[in-house]
Amino acid sequence: MIERYSRPEMAVLWSDATRFELWLEVELAVCEAMEAADVVPAGQAAEVRARARGKLDPDRVRAIEATTRHDVIAFLTHVEELAGPPARWLHFGMTSSDVLDTALALQCGQAVDRILAGIDGLRTALARRAREHAKTPMIGRSHGIHAEPITAGLVFARWYAELGRARERLARARAAIAVGKLAGAVGVYGNIEPAIEAAALGALGLTPETVATQVVARDRHAELLCALALLGTAIEQISLGVRHWQRTEVGEAEEGFGAGQKGSSAMPHKKNPILSENLTGLARLLRAYAGAGFEDVALWHERDISHSSVERVSLPDATILADFMLARVTRVIDGLVLHPERMRENLDRTGGLYCSEAVLLRLVAKGLARQAAYELVQRCALAAHAGEGRFRDLLGDDPDIRAHLSPEELEKELDAAFDLDHHLRHVGLILARALGDADGDPGPW
Amino acid sequence: MIERYSRPEMAVLWSDATRFELWLEVELAVCEAMEAADVVPAGQAAEVRARARGKLDPDRVRAIEATTRHDVIAFLTHVEELAGPPARWLHFGMTSSDVLDTALALQCGQAVDRILAGIDGLRTALARRAREHAKTPMIGRSHGIHAEPITAGLVFARWYAELGRARERLARARAAIAVGKLAGAVGVYGNIEPAIEAAALGALGLTPETVATQVVARDRHAELLCALALLGTAIEQISLGVRHWQRTEVGEAEEGFGAGQKGSSAMPHKKNPILSENLTGLARLLRAYAGAGFEDVALWHERDISHSSVERVSLPDATILADFMLARVTRVIDGLVLHPERMRENLDRTGGLYCSEAVLLRLVAKGLARQAAYELVQRCALAAHAGEGRFRDLLGDDPDIRAHLSPEELEKELDAAFDLDHHLRHVGLILARALGDADGDPGPW
Amino acid sequence: MIERYSRPEMAVLWSDATRFELWLEVELAVCEAMEAADVVPAGQAAEVRARARGKLDPDRVRAIEATTRHDVIAFLTHVEELAGPPARWLHFGMTSSDVLDTALALQCGQAVDRILAGIDGLRTALARRAREHAKTPMIGRSHGIHAEPITAGLVFARWYAELGRARERLARARAAIAVGKLAGAVGVYGNIEPAIEAAALGALGLTPETVATQVVARDRHAELLCALALLGTAIEQISLGVRHWQRTEVGEAEEGFGAGQKGSSAMPHKKNPILSENLTGLARLLRAYAGAGFEDVALWHERDISHSSVERVSLPDATILADFMLARVTRVIDGLVLHPERMRENLDRTGGLYCSEAVLLRLVAKGLARQAAYELVQRCALAAHAGEGRFRDLLGDDPDIRAHLSPEELEKELDAAFDLDHHLRHVGLILARALGDADGDPGPW
Amino acid sequence: MIERYSRPEMAVLWSDATRFELWLEVELAVCEAMEAADVVPAGQAAEVRARARGKLDPDRVRAIEATTRHDVIAFLTHVEELAGPPARWLHFGMTSSDVLDTALALQCGQAVDRILAGIDGLRTALARRAREHAKTPMIGRSHGIHAEPITAGLVFARWYAELGRARERLARARAAIAVGKLAGAVGVYGNIEPAIEAAALGALGLTPETVATQVVARDRHAELLCALALLGTAIEQISLGVRHWQRTEVGEAEEGFGAGQKGSSAMPHKKNPILSENLTGLARLLRAYAGAGFEDVALWHERDISHSSVERVSLPDATILADFMLARVTRVIDGLVLHPERMRENLDRTGGLYCSEAVLLRLVAKGLARQAAYELVQRCALAAHAGEGRFRDLLGDDPDIRAHLSPEELEKELDAAFDLDHHLRHVGLILARALGDADGDPGPW
Repeated sequence: MIERYSRPEMAVLWSDATRFELWLEVELAVCEAMEAADVVPAGQAAEVRARARGKLDPDRVRAIEATTRHDVIAFLTHVEELAGPPARWLHFGMTSSDVLDTALALQCGQAVDRILAGIDGLRTALARRAREHAKTPMIGRSHGIHAEPITAGLVFARWYAELGRARERLARARAAIAVGKLAGAVGVYGNIEPAIEAAALGALGLTPETVATQVVARDRHAELLCALALLGTAIEQISLGVRHWQRTEVGEAEEGFGAGQKGSSAMPHKKNPILSENLTGLARLLRAYAGAGFEDVALWHERDISHSSVERVSLPDATILADFMLARVTRVIDGLVLHPERMRENLDRTGGLYCSEAVLLRLVAKGLARQAAYELVQRCALAAHAGEGRFRDLLGDDPDIRAHLSPEELEKELDAAFDLDHHLRHVGLILARALGDADGDPGPW
Repeated sequence: MIERYSRPEMAVLWSDATRFELWLEVELAVCEAMEAADVVPAGQAAEVRARARGKLDPDRVRAIEATTRHDVIAFLTHVEELAGPPARWLHFGMTSSDVLDTALALQCGQAVDRILAGIDGLRTALARRAREHAKTPMIGRSHGIHAEPITAGLVFARWYAELGRARERLARARAAIAVGKLAGAVGVYGNIEPAIEAAALGALGLTPETVATQVVARDRHAELLCALALLGTAIEQISLGVRHWQRTEVGEAEEGFGAGQKGSSAMPHKKNPILSENLTGLARLLRAYAGAGFEDVALWHERDISHSSVERVSLPDATILADFMLARVTRVIDGLVLHPERMRENLDRTGGLYCSEAVLLRLVAKGLARQAAYELVQRCALAAHAGEGRFRDLLGDDPDIRAHLSPEELEKELDAAFDLDHHLRHVGLILARALGDADGDPGPW
Repeated sequence: MIERYSRPEMAVLWSDATRFELWLEVELAVCEAMEAADVVPAGQAAEVRARARGKLDPDRVRAIEATTRHDVIAFLTHVEELAGPPARWLHFGMTSSDVLDTALALQCGQAVDRILAGIDGLRTALARRAREHAKTPMIGRSHGIHAEPITAGLVFARWYAELGRARERLARARAAIAVGKLAGAVGVYGNIEPAIEAAALGALGLTPETVATQVVARDRHAELLCALALLGTAIEQISLGVRHWQRTEVGEAEEGFGAGQKGSSAMPHKKNPILSENLTGLARLLRAYAGAGFEDVALWHERDISHSSVERVSLPDATILADFMLARVTRVIDGLVLHPERMRENLDRTGGLYCSEAVLLRLVAKGLARQAAYELVQRCALAAHAGEGRFRDLLGDDPDIRAHLSPEELEKELDAAFDLDHHLRHVGLILARALGDADGDPGPW
Repeated sequence: MIERYSRPEMAVLWSDATRFELWLEVELAVCEAMEAADVVPAGQAAEVRARARGKLDPDRVRAIEATTRHDVIAFLTHVEELAGPPARWLHFGMTSSDVLDTALALQCGQAVDRILAGIDGLRTALARRAREHAKTPMIGRSHGIHAEPITAGLVFARWYAELGRARERLARARAAIAVGKLAGAVGVYGNIEPAIEAAALGALGLTPETVATQVVARDRHAELLCALALLGTAIEQISLGVRHWQRTEVGEAEEGFGAGQKGSSAMPHKKNPILSENLTGLARLLRAYAGAGFEDVALWHERDISHSSVERVSLPDATILADFMLARVTRVIDGLVLHPERMRENLDRTGGLYCSEAVLLRLVAKGLARQAAYELVQRCALAAHAGEGRFRDLLGDDPDIRAHLSPEELEKELDAAFDLDHHLRHVGLILARALGDADGDPGPW
């Protein structure tokens, strides 16, 4: 992934240096398991560890690989250079993929752990903003059209809940990927014992692949990429929300604007939601990698290596992007400037049209047939929309409506239908449900 | 989905008729909950049910929709035609999406249940073939090249395990999708009470969306489509395996060939793995629908309806295809004709080259440096590959090898390295682990 | 494709009935070419045509296929039932794919022709609206934020131009797909002569595949699906534009709303851009099919049949959808209600902030350093945005600006910078360029 | 793109350094056009060029961007640092996207030119191998099953033709992308004249966008990514072919194996088609980027910037990968070791079963009904397949066949049907057609 979208801690995890160190960890874990089982003389792993750990030189490995055209053999040759004869006991009975796939499981696990922490940070920010704006009313919109009121806090709570589901999927994918394999060239333990695998993987925090081929099954990695794509869509949902709020005509929120920042080289007046737009785009890349991941699952016989070139790009790029996106979207949420007064203005813009459903229901409850009531209310609503008067006034003056209700009754029903607090009376309950604690409830309206 | 790839029981689930009946179930569940809560006079739902259930006419609904251009309103109008005044109590305080999304959850649940049953059927077949061929040796192949021996049963067991993971993901997606929503136009229960939702959804076997907008969140449906795509890749893996086995040069297995079947209009001698090829293709469609599913997640504000047109196609098509594919692949597995004698022939084709790793390890254990041993063995292997003699003979005659081991020692080591039973000694354990029961173990080798 | 999104003329093109008739056309064209070459006795094709054309019974073919499990053989058997002995001369030296792929080329060609005509209809509508609103000013928006003025006609002209590019790509894909193949089982003309292929394909309006395998190369079909996906994005661009214009807060245009139409079952006041939302979704399906198309290109050796199951779904579904979408979007454009007065209101909403660039440039032209000028203008712009006054007044009163220009100069520069007609002076030229004729020019501003 | 899959000349094209130099080219082209039009005093561009060209410091630009959070403004600030007052005349009347998109068009053009050259190199190699093996017979395979004979040269010629189509699509995409835009903030030439754009773009080898928004339309970039994806599938087709040929059981060709190369760390006997497997995987990434490209087309109003983050990754990564893949696949083709004797062995493996169609046709020509003849031949073919005898012998002995033909006639017909030269008589014509010159024809058989 390009530097612009990489955070150092995640990028280093995918560096050659880290990769070779993880390979060494795997080789050492196996060697130690073999020592414990008296297959290998005691003390070899300790000696290799002392001489090689932290001293691996990626450039040297690459130089050797230029001749052997085989990365693991190049790595082992380099370890032997560093550690001498004890290194001969490494890789005993193993195939390259035993090392590669087991190390990849460790690498993916560490990457996902960072992402899970990133999700937690984002959710903390979302929960905070949800509580802060629990009672800030705004118009809810469906189809981009004013529908009925909600509160701004509800939107944050919704994002919090969606991120919770994204987290759950990712945690499950992490479990699915925490699978190593030390079963030899075609997975039958021809030259290595299952007990060695169990001990070594256990020491590394992994479990064995149920039925391995030369490699661990690739549906596990595809599941991970899907979970990342769905984390991406959750972030996309947030960024899309911010972009809509920041539209000039809506103006209900805007990304924090740093001192010295310039919105446009041509137009000094512009404040653009560029972080959110950026995130909207990056979500597309995450789903692109998931698409490639699906194609990596079905391999020839006991494996072909076509998945490998894809994974060299897709796994680092997808996890690095996800990590970057989480940091960025958390910043957006933390710094988001909300404009409750503008929300109120927008809410009032349609003169209470958003109460049309409540009016409809009250007329039905008073005995009008649903379809007749619908047409009455729609007539007044379209007239209000066309600027012929305020919705409530038009309703109060409508002769067909007045034919069914006494003026007092009508007034009472309209009062109730136009009562915003009544409409929003259950917001506290929803927040409590979403945020998972009693604090969620912002108290009575 | 085209008829050719639809099984009737699944297709009918996505018919208009079923859809309208499910809408009615949802409306009735809400009405009953309201009756129980004394919001609606008792007995309305029962009366509507008696008059309308099973009597809905999809053509009539469509005719009304041609005018209203709104499907739920058309449906309600039709129910009122059938059931008269009590129908007025339906849809009270609800928005269209309350009905649509809750019914969709029921529909998806039923579709997934059929698919889960299909997976179970396939796994039963796979387990049977795994046990049957637990001890049928065949060459394992990596990169399409002979590697080391496995058994045919192991391959079936591997597919069994992969389908188990596919099942687990689908079961989780089923839980994620078992979520309804009866919370009104923007999800804040403006005109309906949370308690009504809880009661009605409970009666339908669903739980409420945590924070709804006008609709249930679409990451749930995207997760379902991902799970189906990954079921597709598991089936693709099987079909790819069968196609490779059936290749003329490999010939280790072939799809059952019905009496009267013709392989080619031009070439009477052909027996092609057409079912498996067909399945390979259909898996591509499943991932295409998942791709569209990702784009359906992020919607404008409290919903836009862009996801709807996609889902009208993708949800039926993906579930109908998955159901069809499961039936077809189960038939392939049940009818698959294996050729153990041909497996044996192929196994022997390289004169034991597949033992090269075992030879290498035994030389290392006897004190040779790994790299030196590797080069010795590779030299003999390449010579054997080039037709200069049998691998074992070349090893036995190699002067550099003989320089390290006495003739007796060498003979003993080669005997051990070329022992197939020893190589496959852990197959029983793997099968038992995969098939999850003691029966998996085919006994000692 | 589901009926809801299928127009009958396109759907019938993909029916079994049409398919079998096209197969017959191909078989007859070959038979006639063979008769002309004296390979087959004269008059056979004419007799088969007289007895079978228009009389093929798809159900009967399917019934035979149930036994043979081979569609072309079933078809030929049925033709022989209808036409008797002369039918024996059909399919001579051909393989099934000769018929299937050549007929598919005809089918795709006809489908694309309908779509091209649909594009032409849409472009006619777009050109009309472009001219109609050539001089209707509206605010241009980048990042969803007001930028500088454009005219509504320009937007239609832009869509017109994009559809022109979509048309060009589709026309090229049509040429790429107009390729048949009558070269036998593996494409080497083993039992049929190249001259027969040339004659028969020529009669059908096709050219021969350069190097065929058993089939025509699938990159041709993938190119077609890509072109359809890019037609989809062009329609998506239009539908997205309409949805943005129709947002409550923007209100610059709205889809025509039929008499009797209901926007929402719950909210009688709603008028939603549902056609455009629907189209936005369908574009996602078109790209999903393109995704599957890429995977269909690389086949095993001289063909595997994995592409076939995909194409049975993707080619009909993609072309039927494209045809449907074109009809729908043309209706949207034809019926779109524009609100020029609302455009004007929105334009004026920021008190001329959109002139900030012009002001900046005039200050630079008057000798201020660019960065200094940028900061002065941004300061006034942010103040105006914050409600501290009208942008022009703030500029006129700014002491730092007044330090550089005399009051008269300043007034003159601001007059020029705030002149909308000057800003839009080149719109006529752009329209003429886009619409490709002198009529495009709406005359001087 | 990771270094492993990047070739330096292409990678440098996408470096910040190149990007900033291209921005400068664009700014200077505009400044020169303005000087020519007497809008800007003569000599400014020349002075800036002398002081800044080749001296831009990417680190310095990034440092400034850290404050301004706007890349073009940071760039201009840096140019002003280097070139002083004349730099004030840069960017006059322009918006950032004028620079960015015009420079991007140059960058994409240069990238595509490299790729086109790579295709030409590959096609040269393919044509050479096609001619070399024009007459090397091998069995053609459909469904992975032996069908009828072809020659190895035909396969290379087929790949040559497919790459020709890939080239054509890419050349068209290059033309579609060779479009700049110097039309200001929303594309209406508010502060810049169309004549300036025409002159400046002309000098850069570009044409103006027909109707620009703030940016050039993104369907152009999507078309490029589609063309690259289809180049990828063409390379995938080749790599898939090589992998199938190299399978142990097929063994008809293998990738060149360097001295010192190791196929497997565990199995010294292995020679794996790893380059081809690698390429198969990389093709998946190319289509993933195309998928993201589709989503970048439809933007909000006169642009949103969501496409930008995607393009920062997808355009470099896709072009760098395509360049890498071309170099690698050309190496594979150049070094591919073919085994004609093994091809012959495989061809003979089925005892002439591949002649079944020719036999069938000759029986039909001799007066047997097609269906009856088909059944006779299929019976012998299946018997031969089951090992009951050689196909030709079984045919010669079949009593039902002998009932229709005299022994002499039968012998003559079988001789003709089993004649390989006759079967392949048109190969020269196909090669000449594909390779586009008389040289293609390998002479008479």
